[in-house]
Amino acid sequence: MSVNVAILGATGYTGAELIRLVSRHPNLSIRHLGAHSQAGKAAGEVLPNLSDDLATMPLLPANEPLSADIDLVFTALPHGAAAASVKAALDAGKKVVDLSADFRHQDKDVYAEAYGQGHPHPELLSQAIFGLTEYARDKLKGASLVANPGCYPTATLLPLLPLLKTGVVDTDNIIVDAKSGTSGAGRSAKTDLLYCEVNENVRAYGLPRHRHTWEMEEWACAFSGQKAKIRFVPHILPMTRGMLATLHLKGSNVAAWHDILSDQYAKESFVHVLPQGKLPQTSGVSGSNCCHIGVSVTGADEAVVVSCLDNLLKGAAGQAVQNANVMYDWEETLGLDVIAYWP
Amino acid sequence: MSVNVAILGATGYTGAELIRLVSRHPNLSIRHLGAHSQAGKAAGEVLPNLSDDLATMPLLPANEPLSADIDLVFTALPHGAAAASVKAALDAGKKVVDLSADFRHQDKDVYAEAYGQGHPHPELLSQAIFGLTEYARDKLKGASLVANPGCYPTATLLPLLPLLKTGVVDTDNIIVDAKSGTSGAGRSAKTDLLYCEVNENVRAYGLPRHRHTWEMEEWACAFSGQKAKIRFVPHILPMTRGMLATLHLKGSNVAAWHDILSDQYAKESFVHVLPQGKLPQTSGVSGSNCCHIGVSVTGADEAVVVSCLDNLLKGAAGQAVQNANVMYDWEETLGLDVIAYWP
Amino acid sequence: MSVNVAILGATGYTGAELIRLVSRHPNLSIRHLGAHSQAGKAAGEVLPNLSDDLATMPLLPANEPLSADIDLVFTALPHGAAAASVKAALDAGKKVVDLSADFRHQDKDVYAEAYGQGHPHPELLSQAIFGLTEYARDKLKGASLVANPGCYPTATLLPLLPLLKTGVVDTDNIIVDAKSGTSGAGRSAKTDLLYCEVNENVRAYGLPRHRHTWEMEEWACAFSGQKAKIRFVPHILPMTRGMLATLHLKGSNVAAWHDILSDQYAKESFVHVLPQGKLPQTSGVSGSNCCHIGVSVTGADEAVVVSCLDNLLKGAAGQAVQNANVMYDWEETLGLDVIAYWP
Amino acid sequence: MSVNVAILGATGYTGAELIRLVSRHPNLSIRHLGAHSQAGKAAGEVLPNLSDDLATMPLLPANEPLSADIDLVFTALPHGAAAASVKAALDAGKKVVDLSADFRHQDKDVYAEAYGQGHPHPELLSQAIFGLTEYARDKLKGASLVANPGCYPTATLLPLLPLLKTGVVDTDNIIVDAKSGTSGAGRSAKTDLLYCEVNENVRAYGLPRHRHTWEMEEWACAFSGQKAKIRFVPHILPMTRGMLATLHLKGSNVAAWHDILSDQYAKESFVHVLPQGKLPQTSGVSGSNCCHIGVSVTGADEAVVVSCLDNLLKGAAGQAVQNANVMYDWEETLGLDVIAYWP
Repeated sequence: MSVNVAILGATGYTGAELIRLVSRHPNLSIRHLGAHSQAGKAAGEVLPNLSDDLATMPLLPANEPLSADIDLVFTALPHGAAAASVKAALDAGKKVVDLSADFRHQDKDVYAEAYGQGHPHPELLSQAIFGLTEYARDKLKGASLVANPGCYPTATLLPLLPLLKTGVVDTDNIIVDAKSGTSGAGRSAKTDLLYCEVNENVRAYGLPRHRHTWEMEEWACAFSGQKAKIRFVPHILPMTRGMLATLHLKGSNVAAWHDILSDQYAKESFVHVLPQGKLPQTSGVSGSNCCHIGVSVTGADEAVVVSCLDNLLKGAAGQAVQNANVMYDWEETLGLDVIAYWP
Repeated sequence: MSVNVAILGATGYTGAELIRLVSRHPNLSIRHLGAHSQAGKAAGEVLPNLSDDLATMPLLPANEPLSADIDLVFTALPHGAAAASVKAALDAGKKVVDLSADFRHQDKDVYAEAYGQGHPHPELLSQAIFGLTEYARDKLKGASLVANPGCYPTATLLPLLPLLKTGVVDTDNIIVDAKSGTSGAGRSAKTDLLYCEVNENVRAYGLPRHRHTWEMEEWACAFSGQKAKIRFVPHILPMTRGMLATLHLKGSNVAAWHDILSDQYAKESFVHVLPQGKLPQTSGVSGSNCCHIGVSVTGADEAVVVSCLDNLLKGAAGQAVQNANVMYDWEETLGLDVIAYWP
Repeated sequence: MSVNVAILGATGYTGAELIRLVSRHPNLSIRHLGAHSQAGKAAGEVLPNLSDDLATMPLLPANEPLSADIDLVFTALPHGAAAASVKAALDAGKKVVDLSADFRHQDKDVYAEAYGQGHPHPELLSQAIFGLTEYARDKLKGASLVANPGCYPTATLLPLLPLLKTGVVDTDNIIVDAKSGTSGAGRSAKTDLLYCEVNENVRAYGLPRHRHTWEMEEWACAFSGQKAKIRFVPHILPMTRGMLATLHLKGSNVAAWHDILSDQYAKESFVHVLPQGKLPQTSGVSGSNCCHIGVSVTGADEAVVVSCLDNLLKGAAGQAVQNANVMYDWEETLGLDVIAYWP
Repeated sequence: MSVNVAILGATGYTGAELIRLVSRHPNLSIRHLGAHSQAGKAAGEVLPNLSDDLATMPLLPANEPLSADIDLVFTALPHGAAAASVKAALDAGKKVVDLSADFRHQDKDVYAEAYGQGHPHPELLSQAIFGLTEYARDKLKGASLVANPGCYPTATLLPLLPLLKTGVVDTDNIIVDAKSGTSGAGRSAKTDLLYCEVNENVRAYGLPRHRHTWEMEEWACAFSGQKAKIRFVPHILPMTRGMLATLHLKGSNVAAWHDILSDQYAKESFVHVLPQGKLPQTSGVSGSNCCHIGVSVTGADEAVVVSCLDNLLKGAAGQAVQNANVMYDWEETLGLDVIAYWP
């Protein structure tokens, strides 16, 4: 079986990772690369890693119509801009995995509050499936529109949801201190993303309330049935890839938390709970679609839970392909290497 | 006035920074460089940055007696090992600034619990002054033994103490999520400190309770009169220098916290509170003895306070020199650059 | 078809990369992981990127016999130490790809001169095939012992050989200035490989004559028939992976060099010559088995030729798997991703 | 004595370093900060390292007149743009150290060839002194206009000139392979300077002939009397600061080269020749105005000479201050730390 794919926003870091993953996926074929500002060039002029056949593919303008033979569209466009492309693709009968934030909220008012602008296509919100794959498989099968989760929400929800579902976490005392590689900030030419400004530097940003906080809280509740307040602070680090979320938690029965997490993810291909007391590191997952989780019990009613993922894979393009695999009812690991490169 | 200085443990990263600072200090002269494993070599063989006169100084063995003309000793030795050198120096009538952990606790039992070994010289604990300079000036003047604070306690206490003293912080809900450059882990040849293991990687460590937690809690109480519980999680980052502490706090009157901090440090040379809402970054302090503090009010009863310092300067050698300046009643900024290098 | 594989020296950086590649190779199965100092542990304790089934494999001591069902052995051991393991494997009827330097020279005296020690098993030298794949396919098919080339010789010979073969290079004026990521220096705990010593630093090393110079000159001659003198200077850079070789060359007919190189590699899967005037960068090949080559004509009789590869892939483990593919007469790209991850 | 200083182009990386150096120089006082695009802001909004008094200084527009009390102007503006500011300052009777390329060539035609545009003020070229300090002291004393050398020419000429002057170098076979930290590329928001594009990457650039080649060849000849052809290839590295130049040389009497260099620089404060056979590293000079030089004899008539400097110090702002010290006949090391920070 071969599904023809369009990637819109192909020259950003997430787009580049989508090209890499799709190009070696046995059931997917790249047929269309869309790019805003770089349209008119060949892909290889903008992405130095492409081999000959991919390198010569043209970068098409944003408004280029999708040809009839395209089945599946990955949209890796800025929020706000993505919605129109998603609508056009749906109207043309394509399936869509949207990697922007445009369809991650069920309620247009929450979107407006988080993103400071009205939603361009609120009528589509109800058909979007929030693609935190491990918690959404039933709905993903056969879905037409999947909203791929943000990197921070993925890194936060995977360790948090099993604890919320079992009711052991104090939902008023959830602190998520997250650290991200710089590729999460995208490829736009901004002074504060220059090498010399990021290197040998760390800073918090996005305060007082980062946009992903709404997404975390909404889906923490939707998937667990528990209303939780999350105090979230992200930081940008001098590394290209990798995301680590440190969850400072209080609750009950903390000695059992490691088991709760281990049981939840025992059969998962991409979520691994490390042995009791061992903490993960981002280099253990970079280049893979994996999320590693570790638990340290730090007191009678408190624990630190740490999760790691590659922000461009399980945090973006990898989970998008994983979702596509579920949409088409294929083996979930298809085209996704299990092992990270190391070092 | 010229004070003659010995630096013991001269070839570690803290020792190297002490050499740099002392060598350009107008009132201090380096006369003795002690080094364990490297003894017998010239300093320049081990430290590539030294200029000719310093490069040719011999590295002396740990047990080399201090000559009579030495006035002041900086000990940058491992905890446990430092105490004997400190005692020898005190017995010989020298002043000492100890950069190890050996004299940071008032009670030998706390030391034993934090460091997992009995204190080698508990009889000296009572005369040690804990050198968080901004809070200890009176006692530092004329002191013979100064215990230089740890990097994490310095980065934590500077933003925390003014809030504790004014009683606005909920002392049961203090979370310190800290990020450190790798130089804080020292210069020993360990696999997990290799370039390829640290680069493109971030990890938490030291759990369930890092040694510096005892130090933070002890001095938070001693300086503020408030008994506080601190949940502390340190992380190691792919950068050489720099430390950032993110304090997730609850409390009352959060709108006033920025003023409380600004007032406390208005006249300090090395502690700067950034304008309301602006958050610091480690590159703004690297190479300087400064600590930058920022405040973000994130809710009705909660705020995030972030502090930055250079772990080798205000977190170690810089504060040691600052303390020496106070001990001798000199201008506190003597020999300490006010401005960080950037980028 | 399934070939059972042993990897000796599994916990170094090259060994880790072999595990990653072999574990996803459709025709290869890992059956044996050998490790010197780490023997007795599970692989996952030493390599953070391994998934569950690989993570639980035991690390076996160096002298552990290879079981009968093992067909192919990759030896990623230090030079000098590798030869004994290679001999044992050959004696047991296994095929071997040796990633050490032990079988890269045809003459034991050259080995002794380059490595400063006598060859442990000179009787085996004559049966070793030097596995610069693109130039050795005929001999590799069915070979029992392949000497996998060094990273620097691979990065140098791929751009140089076509020019030597056509006689356009002045063989007295070949300068190779190479830059390598730190993973090429291995995983041993040495002070000068610590993060803080490598970061924000660059240095030349290995002068006056790096060991790989003998290897370059020997095979430049063997493959081209031209005796060439190579002046080689390697540098270590603050990055984990990647190698770039800048060849400063003189010769005739320089305007044709780009065509000569393009023609030579037109049908190769892993060697790509960039468009005229465009220069490669290491990030374009990291994570892939590719070598990118660029040419800049800088004068009437001079040009700069630049090549890039991932030192752990085309410079080590990747070429080893490529060689295994040829030995077994499989598709040469089997198990080797064509596209680099980026960024 | 106090000389009042204006820094034009204050918010670039060179400008920032000028602020740091001038602010702690005992005889210099900052009175004017000019900035193009950032004019209207306070300096501290753009430069995170500034302390309170500097942070509140206004950034003035490019065309803001220099007040009468300003004595000395450092221009750190783009080439082409600098000349007008230099002329205005000279017309107003100020002394100028220009860090752009605008006055580094004696002949306007060479400038036009190297920079691809006509010189804006060729009438000023004859009064400019090329400030490679160690070779220009006599002319610098009392000079009104100093052209501060480029970073690559400084790193190349310091090791090369003594060898050229003594006639031991084959002037037809000079190859300079240089590696630079990214701060040398400036602070403009370009995609190829983003963290994720520079990190884990190395590439050559500027071919077939980088602009600094003209500068090197012109001053190699002017200072040594020898006409030399230099084949120069620069590379950009994943580090913020530091420059290393590897000179691949042929010539006569190579065994004496180390002595020739050592003798030339024996009394210099900032140029150090390492012991025979030892090679320098950039981390040994970062943060200092030093240049370290090492020699390795690699054959009967060939040697590799390596030099290191901090591109923002001896390669730019540091040498500018050193030149100012000579212009005013002050101690040459005034305000310039002798020791690099390390690590």
